[in-house]
Amino acid sequence: MSEWFEQPAQAASEQHRQHASARQQQLTKPPGSLGVLEGCAIQLAALQRREQPRVERVDIVIFAADHGVADEGVSAFPQVVTGEMVKNFSSGGAAITVLARELAANFQVVNVGTVSALPELPQVLDRRLAAGTQNFNREPAMSAELCAQALAAGRDIVEPITQTDLFIGGEMGIANTTTAAAIACALLKVAPQDMVGRGTGVDDDGVALKARVIAHALQLHAAALTSPLAILQILGGFEIAALSGAYIRCAQRGIAVLVDGFICTAAALVALQLNPSIRPWLLFSHCSAERGHRLLIDHLDVRPLLNLDLRLGEGSGAAVAVPLLRMACALHNRMASFESAGVSTV
Amino acid sequence: MSEWFEQPAQAASEQHRQHASARQQQLTKPPGSLGVLEGCAIQLAALQRREQPRVERVDIVIFAADHGVADEGVSAFPQVVTGEMVKNFSSGGAAITVLARELAANFQVVNVGTVSALPELPQVLDRRLAAGTQNFNREPAMSAELCAQALAAGRDIVEPITQTDLFIGGEMGIANTTTAAAIACALLKVAPQDMVGRGTGVDDDGVALKARVIAHALQLHAAALTSPLAILQILGGFEIAALSGAYIRCAQRGIAVLVDGFICTAAALVALQLNPSIRPWLLFSHCSAERGHRLLIDHLDVRPLLNLDLRLGEGSGAAVAVPLLRMACALHNRMASFESAGVSTV
Repeated sequence: MSEWFEQPAQAASEQHRQHASARQQQLTKPPGSLGVLEGCAIQLAALQRREQPRVERVDIVIFAADHGVADEGVSAFPQVVTGEMVKNFSSGGAAITVLARELAANFQVVNVGTVSALPELPQVLDRRLAAGTQNFNREPAMSAELCAQALAAGRDIVEPITQTDLFIGGEMGIANTTTAAAIACALLKVAPQDMVGRGTGVDDDGVALKARVIAHALQLHAAALTSPLAILQILGGFEIAALSGAYIRCAQRGIAVLVDGFICTAAALVALQLNPSIRPWLLFSHCSAERGHRLLIDHLDVRPLLNLDLRLGEGSGAAVAVPLLRMACALHNRMASFESAGVSTV
Repeated sequence: MSEWFEQPAQAASEQHRQHASARQQQLTKPPGSLGVLEGCAIQLAALQRREQPRVERVDIVIFAADHGVADEGVSAFPQVVTGEMVKNFSSGGAAITVLARELAANFQVVNVGTVSALPELPQVLDRRLAAGTQNFNREPAMSAELCAQALAAGRDIVEPITQTDLFIGGEMGIANTTTAAAIACALLKVAPQDMVGRGTGVDDDGVALKARVIAHALQLHAAALTSPLAILQILGGFEIAALSGAYIRCAQRGIAVLVDGFICTAAALVALQLNPSIRPWLLFSHCSAERGHRLLIDHLDVRPLLNLDLRLGEGSGAAVAVPLLRMACALHNRMASFESAGVSTV
């Protein structure tokens, strides 16, 4: 019996894709001259099964959790910042909350495992699975059961979302660029020194430390890192697993996803290896300044919409890219055709 | 006595720049993690002399004109399309009009020289200087007097604009990638075959033809191409000269400019050579798919916000980039500081 996350994604509509492609050829512009925006509109039409694709309703969910590997000193910020930023999300002062308001997006935060319990906070769901993960430099980050629970936490957040046009997952978790890099190294068989970056701002020594920690962990757990699920369990973070689960459930329910930066792309990579059928549902928003992100993007062979040296996380890069999708849809839906406008063609 | 376009641009406020830079360091994010968006907010604060930069009111002006060099067969579209597209701008079916509505921008079109006169059209100003330019493959595109009038036409459009936060110029003119490439080749001493591209969609033979036409013109007019003003007059288009004049006047009046694609960047290059003081006022929106654009961008040593293979013109790439500036401002103005949010720092 297969797991829930192995169930196939919904199929995109080839009929809507063809219709949208044909429409792009009739609009009053040289064919192809709207570049990447044309493909976005066509893909959204196919995914949404709509003649007029749209990105009006956007749902942004931030998953927050702590990481045992923070004990190794791999982050520029103290671990307490994860919980403090959850409060900042709740009170509206963080980048992603400013952006969510600009977009008039639905916004919620899910605490899947901060190291300390948090008080009740507006817009924050308490789904705390544990007091952070274990330090994967010494032991598996989580048990198989906790990993399944974290994946399910992502799934369960998506379950009640209806009538949305786009899902954005974000993350908050001090040390989670180290976690994401470890997962990506294991999945892609890339050397840690090629994958690690500055995260929130560590110096060269910090980057070297991250690489050493990951190299040690890959060796320590080598015998067990035999599947994407095992890699997620042993090296993962709760928020990364939740993101993977959310992405998969979106694809199964027919909800287009806009993937954020390095950590979200690592979660997408896990999700794609667990369930390759979800691929058409994942749109990629930006290439971040975090070093390993370009490697992941090249591996996935995708072209993100933006390249602005963002490296904040929280889903912020995806949020920044939403207006581009909205404009792609507006152009697709509202431009005149050569015929209707009486404009001569080639 | 110096010409109007040689008068200095307004100075940016170094005090506002420093204040904005300091604020970026206090917001609840790793320093620098908003990448290019941080620099946009800081630059807009310095240009607008505001503690809270903003891009609420946007003014989009499209300059349209025809080009005598179209007689050489350098465009994929017939020349009549320039006037037809002006009508399409007026009736709201063109890409830029869809985008202007999305942005709630002020929008107008200025006919500075379509080959045929156009009927009165809503949102279209008739400032037609001539029935298109002359074919620069045989004679100067315009007289010195017409060139001065075209520059002044751009200036005069900017004159009554008050209280705007951002100016976007756009262009429409069949064959104007050939014109822009000719100007850029002359200004930068680049070989035509390195500058010409597909424009609205010519094939390899069309690209080769464009290079030959430009090479011939550069040789024909070599003795006279001795200044940016002479280059604009001999090789230019009315809409390109008007854009140059508009950019310069914006900088003189303290209005930030968002430059569109290849043709607008060629106009910006002319403007910068006529008046280097305007440089801080020009923001660059995107790198287009038109081959020569990358050359111009590299020469200017700027980093455009977007790279989406757009090649439509009309100011459309700049319009697509406006939400990025709006988000940069929202983040700058509305994020909490570490202190106010009670978040621990590095």
